[in-house]
Amino acid sequence: MLTSTLFPKSFASDNHAGVHPKVLAAVADANAGDAPAYGADPWTQAMEDAFRSQFGARARAYAMFNGTGANVVGLGLALRPYDSVLCPATAHINTHECGAAERILGAKLIPLPTDDGKITADDVREHLSVVGNTQYAQPRVISISQVTECGTVYTADEISELAEFAHSNGLFLHMDGARLANAAAELGCPLRALTTDAGVDLLSFGGTKNGALGAEALVVLRPELDAPALFLRKQGMQLASKMRFVSAQLTALLTDDLWQENAAHANAMAHRLADGVTDLPGVSLRYPVQSNAVFPALPEKAIAELQQRYLFHTWDASENVVRWMAAFDTTPEHIDTFVKDIRAVVQAGS
Amino acid sequence: MLTSTLFPKSFASDNHAGVHPKVLAAVADANAGDAPAYGADPWTQAMEDAFRSQFGARARAYAMFNGTGANVVGLGLALRPYDSVLCPATAHINTHECGAAERILGAKLIPLPTDDGKITADDVREHLSVVGNTQYAQPRVISISQVTECGTVYTADEISELAEFAHSNGLFLHMDGARLANAAAELGCPLRALTTDAGVDLLSFGGTKNGALGAEALVVLRPELDAPALFLRKQGMQLASKMRFVSAQLTALLTDDLWQENAAHANAMAHRLADGVTDLPGVSLRYPVQSNAVFPALPEKAIAELQQRYLFHTWDASENVVRWMAAFDTTPEHIDTFVKDIRAVVQAGS
Amino acid sequence: MLTSTLFPKSFASDNHAGVHPKVLAAVADANAGDAPAYGADPWTQAMEDAFRSQFGARARAYAMFNGTGANVVGLGLALRPYDSVLCPATAHINTHECGAAERILGAKLIPLPTDDGKITADDVREHLSVVGNTQYAQPRVISISQVTECGTVYTADEISELAEFAHSNGLFLHMDGARLANAAAELGCPLRALTTDAGVDLLSFGGTKNGALGAEALVVLRPELDAPALFLRKQGMQLASKMRFVSAQLTALLTDDLWQENAAHANAMAHRLADGVTDLPGVSLRYPVQSNAVFPALPEKAIAELQQRYLFHTWDASENVVRWMAAFDTTPEHIDTFVKDIRAVVQAGS
Amino acid sequence: MLTSTLFPKSFASDNHAGVHPKVLAAVADANAGDAPAYGADPWTQAMEDAFRSQFGARARAYAMFNGTGANVVGLGLALRPYDSVLCPATAHINTHECGAAERILGAKLIPLPTDDGKITADDVREHLSVVGNTQYAQPRVISISQVTECGTVYTADEISELAEFAHSNGLFLHMDGARLANAAAELGCPLRALTTDAGVDLLSFGGTKNGALGAEALVVLRPELDAPALFLRKQGMQLASKMRFVSAQLTALLTDDLWQENAAHANAMAHRLADGVTDLPGVSLRYPVQSNAVFPALPEKAIAELQQRYLFHTWDASENVVRWMAAFDTTPEHIDTFVKDIRAVVQAGS
Repeated sequence: MLTSTLFPKSFASDNHAGVHPKVLAAVADANAGDAPAYGADPWTQAMEDAFRSQFGARARAYAMFNGTGANVVGLGLALRPYDSVLCPATAHINTHECGAAERILGAKLIPLPTDDGKITADDVREHLSVVGNTQYAQPRVISISQVTECGTVYTADEISELAEFAHSNGLFLHMDGARLANAAAELGCPLRALTTDAGVDLLSFGGTKNGALGAEALVVLRPELDAPALFLRKQGMQLASKMRFVSAQLTALLTDDLWQENAAHANAMAHRLADGVTDLPGVSLRYPVQSNAVFPALPEKAIAELQQRYLFHTWDASENVVRWMAAFDTTPEHIDTFVKDIRAVVQAGS
Repeated sequence: MLTSTLFPKSFASDNHAGVHPKVLAAVADANAGDAPAYGADPWTQAMEDAFRSQFGARARAYAMFNGTGANVVGLGLALRPYDSVLCPATAHINTHECGAAERILGAKLIPLPTDDGKITADDVREHLSVVGNTQYAQPRVISISQVTECGTVYTADEISELAEFAHSNGLFLHMDGARLANAAAELGCPLRALTTDAGVDLLSFGGTKNGALGAEALVVLRPELDAPALFLRKQGMQLASKMRFVSAQLTALLTDDLWQENAAHANAMAHRLADGVTDLPGVSLRYPVQSNAVFPALPEKAIAELQQRYLFHTWDASENVVRWMAAFDTTPEHIDTFVKDIRAVVQAGS
Repeated sequence: MLTSTLFPKSFASDNHAGVHPKVLAAVADANAGDAPAYGADPWTQAMEDAFRSQFGARARAYAMFNGTGANVVGLGLALRPYDSVLCPATAHINTHECGAAERILGAKLIPLPTDDGKITADDVREHLSVVGNTQYAQPRVISISQVTECGTVYTADEISELAEFAHSNGLFLHMDGARLANAAAELGCPLRALTTDAGVDLLSFGGTKNGALGAEALVVLRPELDAPALFLRKQGMQLASKMRFVSAQLTALLTDDLWQENAAHANAMAHRLADGVTDLPGVSLRYPVQSNAVFPALPEKAIAELQQRYLFHTWDASENVVRWMAAFDTTPEHIDTFVKDIRAVVQAGS
Repeated sequence: MLTSTLFPKSFASDNHAGVHPKVLAAVADANAGDAPAYGADPWTQAMEDAFRSQFGARARAYAMFNGTGANVVGLGLALRPYDSVLCPATAHINTHECGAAERILGAKLIPLPTDDGKITADDVREHLSVVGNTQYAQPRVISISQVTECGTVYTADEISELAEFAHSNGLFLHMDGARLANAAAELGCPLRALTTDAGVDLLSFGGTKNGALGAEALVVLRPELDAPALFLRKQGMQLASKMRFVSAQLTALLTDDLWQENAAHANAMAHRLADGVTDLPGVSLRYPVQSNAVFPALPEKAIAELQQRYLFHTWDASENVVRWMAAFDTTPEHIDTFVKDIRAVVQAGS
């Protein structure tokens, strides 16, 4: 057996964290003898019910292995063979999925430049002049990330505006919600306020970064897109045979607002971290802290020194911006020690 | 919390079983604070070592979510855009993967008819006349299932012959080893005797049916095919962020021969089941029992009655053949009760 | 300039023939100064009208470069991402298109064994048990070749039966009509009797083998499948910029029944050839002559001798079957000389 | 028969022009009885020789139906399943091919913003930081258009620099040369100076806009990429059965410098047009005239009036920029009449 806590607390990613104890317990509880495979089990039924409770009676949830799987299968529900997806240039689907959307869906991604990971109807509008022109891939889906890859969030109103714009132009709105929980926790609203009620059509719901072992969900919020979901999940290599163990994780997160508790805590830790360093000379925030991520610019020398002791990624080497992430299990002590070390390193260098 | 053993023991599939306690314990043990994501963790390193122990120093193992993922990514290592895969018509990749190989790899599958799920060099040879003819997809991979979908196994010699034939014709040999453990247990040989030592180039190694929660592996046994594996796994939506929880499952199965114990037990239960019924009038075996599956022909009426009480699938309705599967946790009592009921139903009908 | 008639008359393929003079004249006539590109020209309009005259007012014709293009774009109108195509194992789409359907459409082809290249509803029926099973690619299209790759033809009744079976099972009927003209000429019926009136939904109409320079058409006979055609043709690399020169060829063939004249002549030449040799000892026909193809079994030695002087393909080496094709410009003299030589060679060897 | 010159001379596109008489004569001459299909004919051999004469002894030319086909098949020779193509945002492959590269190749395109359709090594360099990162599609090909979609040209030195940069970073250089002839004519250099000698690896050579009926070629200039070309052309639906009629067109253009004559003339007409209007008030050129295209900004009202009488496209509605194209058969009289009318309309409005 490997011993506990081999590694110091990481600020590199919320997927460096382990599993929340309640999630692990739910997995163990699901190990109750035999059960039908491929989702015909009561744990999956409970999971589907839990999603309906959160996202409304028409929401259909499909357990997926990872976020790329949820994004690809979800987008696949909306795309015809000659369609394009309009998304921020920073979108995970555009940058960090190794071209899965292009290879597996054959889709064209149209990357839109942004300042902070967020797009508006205006960013999309100019790309709609090609609608009906058979030489061009046809705009079909607007995809946004909530939380964005820059740690920023869309308000419910901003999402509604995008959804209305999408729908009035014959497009669908897809949300990569790998950190939707963090957005809802930050904005103090239920999950459905940012999704179902705001007009989102297709949602990738993130569980893994919120404390699961490995569980995401595609949530179809527009019923007329739902029909091919089971086929596309299977073909998309996302069908778990012993699905109950994935479903149980999602249910655990959606029970007793565990998702909210985990996300709110991670966000609070990010704010605590940002608050602890922004008064330092040479330190400034590239983006506002609106979730569990902090994107500070630091003196170059300080970055190098800190990365010898702490795990975190450089975000923009040309401007000395790094990314710090907090997770559900980041403690105030983790933060305070990190802040103390950052302050010492930065102040020593100035 | 859901209560234990909601369902009676299933004979429908070995993926109706739960998780072996040692596997579940390994998952819990891996929940030891933070660890790097995407495989840069010690549990994944241990898993890779375990595979090298079993399959030889040159074996490279990649954790995958499910068998379709392992098959598609593995085949993708060998296939050029214009290639075909020669496989038994019964192959899982041909029948039960919803066209994933065609859609995701763009590959042509050439299904070869068989009596018992097994192919030989002769079955393949006649399809090689198109080599070099640019109007035809080019034969590139022979894919076999070990155990086959008919429950039969290839001997090490049979695999060697296919591998030699493949290699001498510029082809690769792929093995869908979703139940490789059962084959090795039945034949009383190490895993490598049926794979590395027999000339297999690419292996999908099954963990889930052998007692894992959800863990398979692509094992690359031919190093020159290995280079794109990390890219294709990511693009193929099979990259787990918290990979340690998948890796730990595989390591548990490969530790202290747990794979062997689980598979041998399941096989023994299948033999016990077959032995208990084959003397009955109107009962005969479609295929010999060589693993954890039994394919009996039964009186039609008996099938209907038994399916009211037991979960199992009809294999060939036209000939009243059904499929019974045993798992690592099927007990002699499960079998004996089932046998008793089968005998009663069949004898009552005759 | 290259001199005329470099090669002796070929019996290998009807695409070894050149261009019918009326087709070449039509191309030259279309070279009348400027015209809008991509089909917005009067020659294309005339072509579309000509197809409506032949196939009914609802037929929509799209000029394509070659048969593979017409087949792939046509099938693409009917297929969802998880669908399969049921076709004879001998189908051109299954054998001679280098896996285009798999790669470009991501479609699964289900090859059905046949005696003579023709399938019936019974051949398809057993493959429909997987409908609704999300583990399987879903049957969506039945594709037949008319004339078949064996030179045989479906009667209008046979096609109607297949279409009715398809439609009553939620499938579509696609016809690869690379030699549809030959079938209609042989059966003495209009083109629409074997297509529109028989319930065909999607047709690849062949012009090249009938005397064109290089022109095929996708003809959509079921209007609800038509919407994506322009996009899929463009994406499928089949959109000619100077389309008038393709369209003019098709119009020429459809004008004054030139298609009929060319096809009937080629068929007559094939019959003349078959009639001239079938009384020979050791010569028998593998398939009945129903178009412009003859598939005789010959003494092995005769094949070798004849192939030194004449161009034709071996069809089945194991049974000494060869394929002889006639074209629109094969003359009685060509045939009679060939027959004389065949007789001499066979009789010398017996 | 349709009568001659139905339409006034178009300034919308060089593919509105018809066929050069020498090309049409070459097609007619190729209609010399039978010839082997699929390229095994002397006209295709002559075409291949003609390309070797122009592009060097190692150049391998493959006749294609259209530019999208040549681009897709050509890029397919270089791309692995997880690769990306770096190209100007204006590139035809990115904008006007309906997502063919994404769907058919599964490739990710990385669009680079430009002022004038041209990119440099610096534009590409920042995108290479992801090399080796398995989460990202891997940069593999730099694709440029020569002439660009803005009518500008790369000098031989500029191409060499890009090629050296590409090769020193493990990338290949692809050129969409739909109007390569115009570039070479403008720069007064042989075709190979801008391609083979400058380090281009893969070339789409345009014939159609240069006076062909419909003929392009993929020219492989880097022999190690050549092996799959025949398979990818067939699978890519670009294999002409009666290939001689495509090959003969290309040979005609490459014979006696017809390509040069046609391109130089078209370029001269564009310069004559630009020279005739640039002194007008409110008229300015968006891009320098370096080929057969003119991109003037005009008074908005003048555009509307001129488009009632002349066929040409609006390029950038927001800045009142239009595109005028000249072709091989545009005469000085066409230009002078057009210039006169433009001057009248613009001057009337000012």
